[in-house]
Amino acid sequence: MKTAINPTRAENFPEWYQQVIAAADMAENSAVRGCMIIKPHGYGIWELIQRELDNRIKEEGVQNAYFPLLIPLSYMSKEAEHVDGFAKECAVVTHHRLEEDKENGGLKPAGELTEPYIIRPTSETIIGESFSKWINSYRDLPYKINQWANVMRWEMRPRLFLRTSEFLWQEGHNVLATAEASNKDARRHLDVYYDLFENVLAMPGICGEKTDDERFPGAIHTYTVESMMQDGKALQASTSHDLGQTFSKSANIQFQDEQGEMQLAHTTSWGLSTRVIGGVIMMHGDDDGLRLPPKIAPQQIVIIPMIKKDADPKVVMDACHDLAAKLKAKNIRVFVDEKDIKTSDKIWGWVKKGAPVRVTIGGREAENNQVEYALRTSNDKQNSTPDEFVANIDGYLTDIHDTLYNEAKAFLDNNIHDAETIFDLINFFRKKTNIGFVRMPIALLNDPKFEETCKEFSLTPRCMPFSDNGDMVIVGKSY
Amino acid sequence: MKTAINPTRAENFPEWYQQVIAAADMAENSAVRGCMIIKPHGYGIWELIQRELDNRIKEEGVQNAYFPLLIPLSYMSKEAEHVDGFAKECAVVTHHRLEEDKENGGLKPAGELTEPYIIRPTSETIIGESFSKWINSYRDLPYKINQWANVMRWEMRPRLFLRTSEFLWQEGHNVLATAEASNKDARRHLDVYYDLFENVLAMPGICGEKTDDERFPGAIHTYTVESMMQDGKALQASTSHDLGQTFSKSANIQFQDEQGEMQLAHTTSWGLSTRVIGGVIMMHGDDDGLRLPPKIAPQQIVIIPMIKKDADPKVVMDACHDLAAKLKAKNIRVFVDEKDIKTSDKIWGWVKKGAPVRVTIGGREAENNQVEYALRTSNDKQNSTPDEFVANIDGYLTDIHDTLYNEAKAFLDNNIHDAETIFDLINFFRKKTNIGFVRMPIALLNDPKFEETCKEFSLTPRCMPFSDNGDMVIVGKSY
Repeated sequence: MKTAINPTRAENFPEWYQQVIAAADMAENSAVRGCMIIKPHGYGIWELIQRELDNRIKEEGVQNAYFPLLIPLSYMSKEAEHVDGFAKECAVVTHHRLEEDKENGGLKPAGELTEPYIIRPTSETIIGESFSKWINSYRDLPYKINQWANVMRWEMRPRLFLRTSEFLWQEGHNVLATAEASNKDARRHLDVYYDLFENVLAMPGICGEKTDDERFPGAIHTYTVESMMQDGKALQASTSHDLGQTFSKSANIQFQDEQGEMQLAHTTSWGLSTRVIGGVIMMHGDDDGLRLPPKIAPQQIVIIPMIKKDADPKVVMDACHDLAAKLKAKNIRVFVDEKDIKTSDKIWGWVKKGAPVRVTIGGREAENNQVEYALRTSNDKQNSTPDEFVANIDGYLTDIHDTLYNEAKAFLDNNIHDAETIFDLINFFRKKTNIGFVRMPIALLNDPKFEETCKEFSLTPRCMPFSDNGDMVIVGKSY
Repeated sequence: MKTAINPTRAENFPEWYQQVIAAADMAENSAVRGCMIIKPHGYGIWELIQRELDNRIKEEGVQNAYFPLLIPLSYMSKEAEHVDGFAKECAVVTHHRLEEDKENGGLKPAGELTEPYIIRPTSETIIGESFSKWINSYRDLPYKINQWANVMRWEMRPRLFLRTSEFLWQEGHNVLATAEASNKDARRHLDVYYDLFENVLAMPGICGEKTDDERFPGAIHTYTVESMMQDGKALQASTSHDLGQTFSKSANIQFQDEQGEMQLAHTTSWGLSTRVIGGVIMMHGDDDGLRLPPKIAPQQIVIIPMIKKDADPKVVMDACHDLAAKLKAKNIRVFVDEKDIKTSDKIWGWVKKGAPVRVTIGGREAENNQVEYALRTSNDKQNSTPDEFVANIDGYLTDIHDTLYNEAKAFLDNNIHDAETIFDLINFFRKKTNIGFVRMPIALLNDPKFEETCKEFSLTPRCMPFSDNGDMVIVGKSY
């Protein structure tokens, strides 16, 4: 069978992934090492994810703010464990001017800084510094801040969306009065992410806690949603950290409690990045390209006029714009594609871009008050009157969301394999055609064979699922 | 008379400005030289400006995208005039790693890059590079891209919002087929900005073209909206540039026209930054603090419960939340301030933060089905039933917008002074109490005394107003 994307998922999953991004015109590599250009179709998806998450974050009483891009080098020395986790991969600003290079031509750096800055890889240190000034009393708590920002971690093996030197994200930073409150807060923000995953991205996943070795540098608990891609590998697109008093100690975030005593605060941080778009592609895409959950589709309905020689173009275009106006009135994101290219190229273009519903209207349809439509999740052509189509559209979109979710959920459930011993784990991954996660008793983490098994098969403990009350651990390959 | 902000505008305008920002809790300086922290109240204003402008930009057929933060040094050498304008003030990234500094302790830069990068001061060069790949045919034009991003220009004398090393903005970049189309496009985007200024920010201004010396580096026409602050100085918060073929030449942006001939494209760029928030403060603020146009007020209505000993707190709180619910149902941004601090401090806090309408409800009001309210533009206390208040709220908000606009418009009109000769210009600014703009014939730009007069009084030509058909030029002091 001919597919729009070559190779297919089965033939070469990593290459299929790159080809989907190119075919859907979502992003591309730039001349800047490891940095991507997010093109309008990719960025449109990000904007919708942002809006959905931002609304949810604000419902939690979080306020948006903005902190500097640059962090003084000395801040990074304050928190030793955190530095170990990040220091190796920072972009370092050492000069603040350019001047003519008289020897070699062109320009050269000038104005050396007395203290270098790094471009933020994450902002705990610089935001902590502000918190120490802003927070004085128990009345100020909980204090909840989020920023939408670009961050940078130098990447030696970049991959579009999944691993790029610069990426976009939100990073939330909350300050709480007690250990209990900060743990509850970190868990709450994971729930907020999971709500986004399920109800917006149609992405099932496993919620749980990271094992000791996999925690964020400086965290006492790291909570995660682990998603399973169609090649059986895990993708972690959001995490929520209970930082305990690690950063409040190094930044000295104190408050006066109700008894007038000074107390060290507790903090959390929680983030979701453009990486999640890679997850959407690898969870929902098929061999014809992207399939977008309707809530993040920049164009939920694409209307394609088919003007053949025998038809009156005006009648066709009027029918298209009439339908678009009715859909817009229902707050549907609709796009009439009037571009001057071949109709079949246009249709395949929107298949590859993952538009949830495609409508075609030609001369015959326009005259007979009909539309032809296809859902991206079935591709069967159907007919109805425009009014019926408008009346049913919410149902179609819900249906597409549910289909994507249910397919992915079935795939996830079918690819979690129980193991009782390290030998079960080894036997599973030894067979190269086996994919997915292995779920095994937590005690096996301490088995002397566990580490070497992980090395041999490139495995990591993904999480200890909440649903197993911390008794089990999920192990798998990952992005 | 006692004022909430000291000094007053009349006493010391620059210091009043800093004090308003502090009192309204909008932003503060960071430990990073010249970079500000935008606090929730300041960022909330920016988010509303973004939403209003983003909707307008999208109506123009512009799509959002995202380009890398870093620009290879060699890109900056491509466009000579542009580099002269920017090269002196760039943050330069020279290393991509940190390592332990064994000699001095702490960390030091490592992993020197073969080619340094600069943090974008603006993105014409890097976006132009992409355009040269993406644009092939006349069918691709017009091509319109915008990005919301942080940019960096090293500032030696930073001032919050007005002049900071890092700032937030949108930068639009359009590609057009002809000189006529690019000029029309640059003018169109200035109209879009002016619509935002008038209808969202309540900011009157003078639309016009920059003189040759004041153009953006590389532009052939720079269009601007010049606003007048309450000290008579100009603030330019947005510009739109017709770049002609400057950047399409250096980046080689070509397309095949309808006749199959290769043509060099024409480009425009247009931007608005967080600087505009400084303009809002200095145009609308009074001696009690900020006054926010309702469309950019994070809290349009603040409801303050007044719980005295004799009142039932529940009755008061219920009345507050009832009113809030009714306002929310009308899509009004309403906030019930339940913070545990003195009521008078709370009221003054919201005066200083510029909330358009304050409502107070105490035990007596709650029992009598009344509310007491005050508009920030009048501060007179009024009474009505909650239902009347809800029914009239749109009118109150419109009234506040119009009052702010009309006051600023009258101030602008009263402070433009006509001059016929350079001596008129000199005589005007010689008198230290004279403030505002001078409007004079364009020919005087060539008067040999003009330049030294500008130097003596720190003047610049602000723009050649469209309304004068290019015959006149506005001259003034500026931010």
